[in-house]
Amino acid sequence: MKIVFIGSGNVATHLAKALFATGHMIMQVFSRSGENATLLANEVGAGAVDGYHLINTEADLYLFCVKDDALQEVILQMPQTTGIWAHTAGSIPMSFFSSRKEEYGVIYPLQTFSKDRALVFTDIPLFIEGSTPATIQFLENMARSISREVHILPGEKRRYLHLAAVFACNFVNHMYHLSSEILLKEDIPFSLLRPLIEETAAKVMEMNPGEAQTGPAVRNDEEVMHNHLMLIADQRIKEVYTLISRSIQSP
Amino acid sequence: MKIVFIGSGNVATHLAKALFATGHMIMQVFSRSGENATLLANEVGAGAVDGYHLINTEADLYLFCVKDDALQEVILQMPQTTGIWAHTAGSIPMSFFSSRKEEYGVIYPLQTFSKDRALVFTDIPLFIEGSTPATIQFLENMARSISREVHILPGEKRRYLHLAAVFACNFVNHMYHLSSEILLKEDIPFSLLRPLIEETAAKVMEMNPGEAQTGPAVRNDEEVMHNHLMLIADQRIKEVYTLISRSIQSP
Repeated sequence: MKIVFIGSGNVATHLAKALFATGHMIMQVFSRSGENATLLANEVGAGAVDGYHLINTEADLYLFCVKDDALQEVILQMPQTTGIWAHTAGSIPMSFFSSRKEEYGVIYPLQTFSKDRALVFTDIPLFIEGSTPATIQFLENMARSISREVHILPGEKRRYLHLAAVFACNFVNHMYHLSSEILLKEDIPFSLLRPLIEETAAKVMEMNPGEAQTGPAVRNDEEVMHNHLMLIADQRIKEVYTLISRSIQSP
Repeated sequence: MKIVFIGSGNVATHLAKALFATGHMIMQVFSRSGENATLLANEVGAGAVDGYHLINTEADLYLFCVKDDALQEVILQMPQTTGIWAHTAGSIPMSFFSSRKEEYGVIYPLQTFSKDRALVFTDIPLFIEGSTPATIQFLENMARSISREVHILPGEKRRYLHLAAVFACNFVNHMYHLSSEILLKEDIPFSLLRPLIEETAAKVMEMNPGEAQTGPAVRNDEEVMHNHLMLIADQRIKEVYTLISRSIQSP
């Protein structure tokens, strides 16, 4: 399959490498700045382009991996092409493409991507949506070539999945961050928390998170919570502590 | 070493089993209700007792593993004994013992304990504090018999570690819980999030959480955040979404 990547960020990088490794042909990597595009293009045997007029118009698939708030503008600027257009965004409906294309869809990888971290792509759940049965089939086949976890999911559901992922990933990471800030001020290494962090994540692989809840809030231990608040100097961290404790305690 | 456990909850269970497995003698397990005590006592070859007057007064170590808000009362009720008294609570100063004992201290295991989950105890960091150099030495030796991660840490520092653990474990688990509530309403299985949850935890084993942050808040993607808020029916979850997003964005 001949693929053009629109965008060269974290998602594009991981997806392009996985597709390249499975034998797909990455024809081009386009990015408006050009810089990252060259880096990624070199890794997957593709050409790097930085102008819309330079985009090859005869690929089978155009994968739009750009920031959510840039997607509309990028779609408007795209030249007419053959093939299918698909984006990779959790919260954007596939209908963003409808004024420009008939065969379009979504491949949403439910994972957090950082450039420097290698990932086993075959374990990443991919969620497919398409404008026609043939498009769905096409995107599903492509998805199955790189992952064992492929699901057809309409956009109405996908946006809830994306919302849930914000809690389970982005907000979780922010909790790690606040805890690292607390330790930094006391010169205690964050690495001491690693067994705890691993076990907390491992637990919810087997129990549901409601049952797994521990700590002063769920025990209604007001004294410990009061003492904790006294230790927090930062008003923002105090607010987070209070609200989440209350949320844990709410029925 | 001859050990008496005061309390028979999750911490007592895991600690007693680890100590028993290393060859220590668990003489008794005391609990006010008696019920759990019998269960645990049977597993570690100990006697179960439910009255303070039945506690053997000639052990080397009395380990107080009771709820934080019960500790003071339990200490008052304890008979005079030989040996060392130590508690396992993150946020309680060791001085709670000072009116009753001269040799006392703390062994704080930094982990989340559920009865039904087996844990590799040797990986759990244990934090030691003691009222005298000999007490510290004694508790350190005992701790090293069950864990490779033993640290001497004064109570002033320990309470910050405990506070940080609330963020990195209890609050993290609540984020998992809120995400599972969002998915439940949409009939989407929580298990789909597992690779994401694992990777989010794995990332901060290698990068610091500040660098690892992804998602709409750190990208300042106001439109996605606005759309997410529109999807959340529950006022409490809305508040959490708003506050944490703002906290991620704050400098």
